[in-house]
Amino acid sequence: MNSKELVKNAIGRMVPTEVNGKTLIPFMGVGKYKPTGRKYAPMIATCADYPSDGNKTVPSLKDALIKAGLKDGMTISTHHHFRNGDLVANQIFQIASEMGIKDLVWFPSASFECHSALIEYLKDGTIHHIEGSMNGSLGRFTSGGNMKGVGVLRSHGGRYQAVQDGDVKIDIAVIAAPTADPFGNANGVNGPAACGLLGFALADSQYADKVIVVTDNLVPFPCIPWQIHGNYVDYVVKVDQVGIHEKIVSGTTEITKSPDRLLLAEMTAKFCEQTGIIHDGFSFQAGAGGTALSIGIYFADILKEKGMKSRWARGGSNKYLVKMLEEGLVEYILDGQTFDLEGVRSMRENPNHVDTSPFTSYNYHSKGNFASMVDVTILGATEVDVNFNANVVTHSDGILLHGIGGWQNCLFSKCTILPIPLFRDRIPVIKDEVTTICGPGELIDVIVTERGIAINPLRKDLIEKMKGSSLPVKTIQELKEEAEKICGVPDKPVFGDKIVAIVKWVDGTVIDIVRNVVN
Amino acid sequence: MNSKELVKNAIGRMVPTEVNGKTLIPFMGVGKYKPTGRKYAPMIATCADYPSDGNKTVPSLKDALIKAGLKDGMTISTHHHFRNGDLVANQIFQIASEMGIKDLVWFPSASFECHSALIEYLKDGTIHHIEGSMNGSLGRFTSGGNMKGVGVLRSHGGRYQAVQDGDVKIDIAVIAAPTADPFGNANGVNGPAACGLLGFALADSQYADKVIVVTDNLVPFPCIPWQIHGNYVDYVVKVDQVGIHEKIVSGTTEITKSPDRLLLAEMTAKFCEQTGIIHDGFSFQAGAGGTALSIGIYFADILKEKGMKSRWARGGSNKYLVKMLEEGLVEYILDGQTFDLEGVRSMRENPNHVDTSPFTSYNYHSKGNFASMVDVTILGATEVDVNFNANVVTHSDGILLHGIGGWQNCLFSKCTILPIPLFRDRIPVIKDEVTTICGPGELIDVIVTERGIAINPLRKDLIEKMKGSSLPVKTIQELKEEAEKICGVPDKPVFGDKIVAIVKWVDGTVIDIVRNVVN
Repeated sequence: MNSKELVKNAIGRMVPTEVNGKTLIPFMGVGKYKPTGRKYAPMIATCADYPSDGNKTVPSLKDALIKAGLKDGMTISTHHHFRNGDLVANQIFQIASEMGIKDLVWFPSASFECHSALIEYLKDGTIHHIEGSMNGSLGRFTSGGNMKGVGVLRSHGGRYQAVQDGDVKIDIAVIAAPTADPFGNANGVNGPAACGLLGFALADSQYADKVIVVTDNLVPFPCIPWQIHGNYVDYVVKVDQVGIHEKIVSGTTEITKSPDRLLLAEMTAKFCEQTGIIHDGFSFQAGAGGTALSIGIYFADILKEKGMKSRWARGGSNKYLVKMLEEGLVEYILDGQTFDLEGVRSMRENPNHVDTSPFTSYNYHSKGNFASMVDVTILGATEVDVNFNANVVTHSDGILLHGIGGWQNCLFSKCTILPIPLFRDRIPVIKDEVTTICGPGELIDVIVTERGIAINPLRKDLIEKMKGSSLPVKTIQELKEEAEKICGVPDKPVFGDKIVAIVKWVDGTVIDIVRNVVN
Repeated sequence: MNSKELVKNAIGRMVPTEVNGKTLIPFMGVGKYKPTGRKYAPMIATCADYPSDGNKTVPSLKDALIKAGLKDGMTISTHHHFRNGDLVANQIFQIASEMGIKDLVWFPSASFECHSALIEYLKDGTIHHIEGSMNGSLGRFTSGGNMKGVGVLRSHGGRYQAVQDGDVKIDIAVIAAPTADPFGNANGVNGPAACGLLGFALADSQYADKVIVVTDNLVPFPCIPWQIHGNYVDYVVKVDQVGIHEKIVSGTTEITKSPDRLLLAEMTAKFCEQTGIIHDGFSFQAGAGGTALSIGIYFADILKEKGMKSRWARGGSNKYLVKMLEEGLVEYILDGQTFDLEGVRSMRENPNHVDTSPFTSYNYHSKGNFASMVDVTILGATEVDVNFNANVVTHSDGILLHGIGGWQNCLFSKCTILPIPLFRDRIPVIKDEVTTICGPGELIDVIVTERGIAINPLRKDLIEKMKGSSLPVKTIQELKEEAEKICGVPDKPVFGDKIVAIVKWVDGTVIDIVRNVVN
């Protein structure tokens, strides 16, 4: 795709009105696009077509895919609760490739380095393009302009929205499940590969034409809890191993030991304390990065000291958050994905550790969701511009390396804080213009760097509260200049003409594009 | 409506092809009607239209109804988890009547004697007709030919099917909830009016245009468990009292003391033992009537004696079933409604006491449901004919007095047994032809009466297993003749020309009609 037929969207980015043969709506501003249609309506099934004894097992994944009618051009979905330990997605496309199937769309809820094997199937034409995240090797492959179609990046909530609204029609959903029964009821809390929950697969189960559950722990009906309802499931496959659950722990789920990062964490926590954001009954989402985890620990200290507790914390859960729950510092964890095995254990054992889905947490085309109720959300970013717009998918070299995750959705919290180092590898993080806009500045309230805190001018209330604070409050321009004084202004990446991916906003409109990088 | 334009359906009953302005499909035989369309697609909402702090409370039910756009001709739904202790349904129509609204359709999941107050609003034109059950006084009113429109009787599963498939479009769902938060998350297990679960309101929450949650126990977000998701909810109303939960206990939730009924129970249990239906890991549904409860107690004794346990029991739960769960005789209760406060407590405390909905249990237009997996289901009937067809909605005098409940759905179990007295008030229960066919004989396997057991000739396997049994196995004709020898053949009721209600089968087709009774 070349650059003709682009239009300028509400945040000033030139975006296409069509990719992969589908019409697109340019970003119109936060809350401005109002959907007028109806949700996607799946075909009506009948019990008459399903075994009355509830046994939907078939011998292999290949059998299930054939029964589900796998053919050229279909959209195949998977979830990422196993994170880098997923063993199922690659198998699907290996089978499809061996069958000579072409032009599939892979629609994962996220991809990881373990999926780099799929590059082979992107090359041989089995996969046309990915709608999801293109992380690591897949990102580099995409940025090189090598994917046949155009990648589509969505937030977790945007993925639910896209399925619900029929923007993406899933032909076959494959749900890797740590435990399931022959009817297709499934959960992530039990079994040798327990990974916590299956919320990212909820939309897939509800709306896909055919649904396949793959498990290595088949139990007699009923599989309880039934995070996925067998009533949505067509086939069940038993395999030897469905995922490597130790690999849900990534390198970022330990608290940081870097003095710089600890400083960021401490400044962020102090900011929350001084502005009164931390109060009895408050709610927070701190994410899973090293800095974010450290902030959680500071929050715990502050709560203990003040004799307060948090009504609820939003997970990704991990051992630190679980400890807060078990110590009574947090009443509920509303968890979207478990980041370690302590999170899995807690979700299995503790009714106050609640599994959620992008429907309950993030779907913007809903009658509200809980992301906007969070008092404070701590997020990361690869770049921020002087208007507080931020980037999470590309680096300053222009290469696509990350998915959006829940990041866009979380921006709707009452206060969004980005604690970020002022520069990374001597490249300033604050720019005049970010490489890719993933989130509009109006939703980003505070930037915390090791050399100062910038509050969005829109948040006069926070600026007022920080008057007289010992914390170094500066303007974002001041922070940018300070970084550039030290590092200079870096060269911009050289992009080609090809649009390799588009970035969707939470409402399905297009907020930005990613072009191929020319080296 | 008069008798012209009737067609004969697959079970030989004359049924209309249209009532209340809607086209109908005559019953085509079990599993014969294959839906070809798509599910009902609700309008896409957007968070932009809902308060970002999640507070959807409005001052009163009237305010909520006005905001929801209450107007003439709308369909208003309620659930029956409070059974005879419901305090909300009557208020809705009182408000509507005071506002001068006309021709509403009331779409409850069931009605009880406490709803007899609605006769006033059926008379004054506020309510056009009821789609649900017309029990007791409402049934008599309907049978008298006094309802403006034609009543539509559906099973619990048929109700979910009708909503899912768009046969019934709910304009406003009002969900009475023992506990809720301001976002609309709600449950039935907590709060002063705890009634157990809210599964009957699931379809309403998912598909209604506007959803109102009414509660007397408003808690801070998050209300956990969230049996109803606030993401589907438009308005939340706090009231003084939402229901009288002691009244979920009806007169039939104590074990029978009648020697005749105890004999039925004992014979049924022995039949299940002798045929091998009771085996380690079996599943059963015994219902809540006095006889059924006694059968459960016999089952418990047999299990204990044999050192076996049941994998799961289907509730309606009550103190007897809870005792079996707590004694380890049953591993899971899959519960559709709690019939006493012990059921409520157990569901609140015990993760193996699982709340279900008509979606998971009964919806026939699904990829299977668990009703067909139950090894044995014990049900009641007002009449049975010599072809094993049975009636649960009218009595032999022709008067409509009961709803279908889950009865039709449960017929799909592996073995359906009806333990019924051979006559009631000197009227034989086995007839040449039942007044109203609610369930086709091919799905009813065994009739147990105090004077003998009749096995459906289709179940050659069961007949074989009972050869040489000490239990009195007879043909259904023999049982009928025996009853008629004692009581004579009763007069048939005298019906008028008016169709006052239709009876839907689980797939939405029309299996029979109910006419007005002329006295």
